[in-house]
This record gives sequence, C-alpha cells and structure tokens, in this order.
Amino acid sequence: MRAAIRHGEFTDFTNLVARNSVQGNLMIVPQAYAADFEAYARANPQALPLIGRSEPGSPHIREIAEDLDLRTDVGGYMVFRDGALVDTPRDITGLWREDFVAFVLGCSFSFESLLLRHGVRLRHLEQGDVSAMYVTDIPTVPAGPFEGPLVVSMRALSPQDAIRATLVSARYPQFHGAPVHIGAPEMIGIRDLDASYGGHGMRRLEADEQPVFWACGATAQIAALAARLPLCITHHKAHMVVTDLPIPDAD
Amino acid sequence: MRAAIRHGEFTDFTNLVARNSVQGNLMIVPQAYAADFEAYARANPQALPLIGRSEPGSPHIREIAEDLDLRTDVGGYMVFRDGALVDTPRDITGLWREDFVAFVLGCSFSFESLLLRHGVRLRHLEQGDVSAMYVTDIPTVPAGPFEGPLVVSMRALSPQDAIRATLVSARYPQFHGAPVHIGAPEMIGIRDLDASYGGHGMRRLEADEQPVFWACGATAQIAALAARLPLCITHHKAHMVVTDLPIPDAD
Repeated sequence: MRAAIRHGEFTDFTNLVARNSVQGNLMIVPQAYAADFEAYARANPQALPLIGRSEPGSPHIREIAEDLDLRTDVGGYMVFRDGALVDTPRDITGLWREDFVAFVLGCSFSFESLLLRHGVRLRHLEQGDVSAMYVTDIPTVPAGPFEGPLVVSMRALSPQDAIRATLVSARYPQFHGAPVHIGAPEMIGIRDLDASYGGHGMRRLEADEQPVFWACGATAQIAALAARLPLCITHHKAHMVVTDLPIPDAD
Repeated sequence: MRAAIRHGEFTDFTNLVARNSVQGNLMIVPQAYAADFEAYARANPQALPLIGRSEPGSPHIREIAEDLDLRTDVGGYMVFRDGALVDTPRDITGLWREDFVAFVLGCSFSFESLLLRHGVRLRHLEQGDVSAMYVTDIPTVPAGPFEGPLVVSMRALSPQDAIRATLVSARYPQFHGAPVHIGAPEMIGIRDLDASYGGHGMRRLEADEQPVFWACGATAQIAALAARLPLCITHHKAHMVVTDLPIPDAD
C-alpha cells in the first residue's frame, strides 16, 4: 500500500485498505516545537496517542515501518504556514528540512477493524465513506503554544452497537480508546451534524442510529493552526500513514 | 440490616444501605414453574443474573447468606395470583408453601456502589431517591410460559460519566453488566420518562445529563405476570434481598 501511494497508484482515502495494519495521523513540526508538541500529545492521549516519533531531520520511523518514507508515502499532505493552509501536495520531498520532527498518532481507522471483527455494523464503510469529524466545545489540556478544542470522529451506530463499540474500543487506548460521547451532539458543542470538519465523511443518521463520537487526531491540526507555527505539515484528510504494526487480535 | 428488616425496624428502600453487600431481586414460584423460570433467567442473563436458588420448600439460600430467611427478611413483598397483584405484605410466613422455590437475581444497586467508587456521580442517590424503571419494547428470550419485554432501570449521568459507567458496569455481569442503551429513550420504546414502571424513582434529567438504561430484574415480574402463574411472590419495589456476598473491590 505504501509503495502504491508512493508511486501515485493509490490516491484514495486509506480507511478501506490495509485493514490489518495500524494507521496513523501525521504531524511534522520544526524541532523547536517538537518538545511542546510531544508534551501536548502526552497531555491529551485520548485524542493524540503517540505511536511514533522521528529523529530530527529523518523522514523515517523504523519502529513503525522499516521502509517508511514520510516525504512520499502519504497520499496527501497539508502544508500550514503561520496558521494558514498554503498547499495540499502529494509529495513533500522538496519541502523537507533537516530540523523536521515527525509524529505519528493513533487513528480511529485502526479500531474500525476491531469493531468489525466484533460484529459492529459500520454503515459508512459499507457506503465507501469515511467517518465525519467535528470540532467540539471540549477543551484539550494545553502545552506550550498548543491548545484548543477536541476534534472528534463520528460513527452512526445502532444503540446496541454503540454500547458494544464502547466496550471494544475502550481496550485500545492507542487507537483513541472509548468514545467521548454517545447520542446528543449538542451536549459537546456540535450544532449541526451536516457541518463536518473538513466537509467530508458520512453525516446522516438513520432513525435507528445514534451518533457515537471518538477523540480524533485532527485535534493536533486545530492546535497547530491556532499556535500559528511558522511551518507544519500534516496528512490530508483521510490519507493516513500506513504502518507495518499489526492490528491486535480481537479477544 | 436483615435483622432490622425482619423486626420491622428498617422499612425503607435498600438502595442507600448495606452498600458493601450484594443485593438481589426475589422471585418465588411453585416448583412446577421453577425449571422454566431458571431457563428464562439463563436465557436473559443481562436482566436476570442468577445469584442464588433455594431447595424446594426452603426459605434459605446458605450460599448467599447464612441466616437469610426469605419469609421475613425482605422489606416488602408482592403476591401475584393468576397474573394479578393481590397483596403487598411485609412478611410471607403465612403464605409459605412446601413447593416454593426462591430465586435471587443480581440487582443494579450493587453496581451503584462500584460506580461511586469510580467517581461516577449518581444524583438520584444524592437526592435519597432510587433509579426509575421503565418497560421497553426490547423483547426477552422466551422460556416455557415466561416471556415479555425487557424492563430497565435509568440513571441520569453526565456524558462523560455515561461512558465511564458503561465501562465499569460491563465488568460485572452478575449485576446486569453494561447498559443496554444510552441517550434516546424513544429508541427503546420509552415514550415518557415521567411514566416510570411502578411510579417511583428519579425521572427528571438536568440539561447536562443523559439517561442511561440498564437491564433490570423487574423483567421477571412482568414475565411472571404475563404467564399468569397461579401464585408467585416477588420483592416489592426497591426492597431487595440483602445478601452477605461482598461487593467486589473496584480495580
């Protein structure tokens, strides 16, 4: 999958592929901000479970994938300068700097595999869609220049599956753990399910479904934007870092 | 506590007392129905977790309490004949029969202790109230003459506590396990939170609370009524069997 992405042969969202491999959010910051960003992730582990960090200047993280090249192996990137999105390239080789530090953070795509194994129906996958994201009014714990609201991903589940998904996902803190909310979007500051963060993802509920919300790695993007870093680079939407780490067996 | 109940010195609901002892629902049926009732309980273990059964004719269950006398040690009883409530005595010594078999089934009062230990706020307890019960449209698994809808108990919790309570209670299947529903009463056939089963219990939600519903032992009462047993006796409302079994330590 990484080779296909690298060579431009796979350009879709990664949620429907590489289901047995852990996927992750990407955040690349200049080294001057790396310690603060790591502190922010560790202070908000439900949103930002740290699964890998590169050495300064290295686009590799051997612990999560032997041949991973973070300059080419992600299907889309967002480049932010001074708090503004300036580009969405498919390759960041030309932008790479010797002081870049890359962080890979756990992603809900990984626990979706586990939910499916436990018989939870994920309608957005059946429809070939991704889960929608929303900005809540739940604050994160600040660290250095990083602070801001929690971003969540939403899945539409039957009431029984909402409980089952809660119990299954809680066992995997490295993939965001248990949901932060079930049911009433307005209770966490979401006024309109149609208005998702980034504008993508399945937003409509059937009559017998409840929205279930999990902490989301996109929380890091909001915080990095608000911190007006001179430069940072993240993955774009649902184009995640595909690692070699296996999804644990469901028990 | 049992001695106080036996001697008429304690006449309140048992949810605020004996917090470190497992409490249970009581169902007494003629021996002719005992096998079917046990099958019904085993087929619906979330509602009817079996924690004790007496020998025919014995009002004692030594496994759950050495000196328990089920004719006198419950604060209130309901006597049903042919599917109708005919009496609510405080003592059933005069009604006891040599063919009676008593079942004690786990009760949510036991997991409330565990929720409190985990920091979940239970407002109904702060107000000296019990949890309200509701009849849902979720069917139980029939066995012999026993069938009918699932009865649930409701607690008003903050969204965060709803998730926490789900994870804690799930570890204790003997006390009903995880909730069956969080959030939207109408999704499980409850149209009016004010109209609780039996008419008691805290029914009002604050703006920042969600209703969380657990399977409830009162499910057995509904099933026994619908089966029109010639005679059966249950505990009355929140007057539970107080056992000597300890509430497990929270981990």
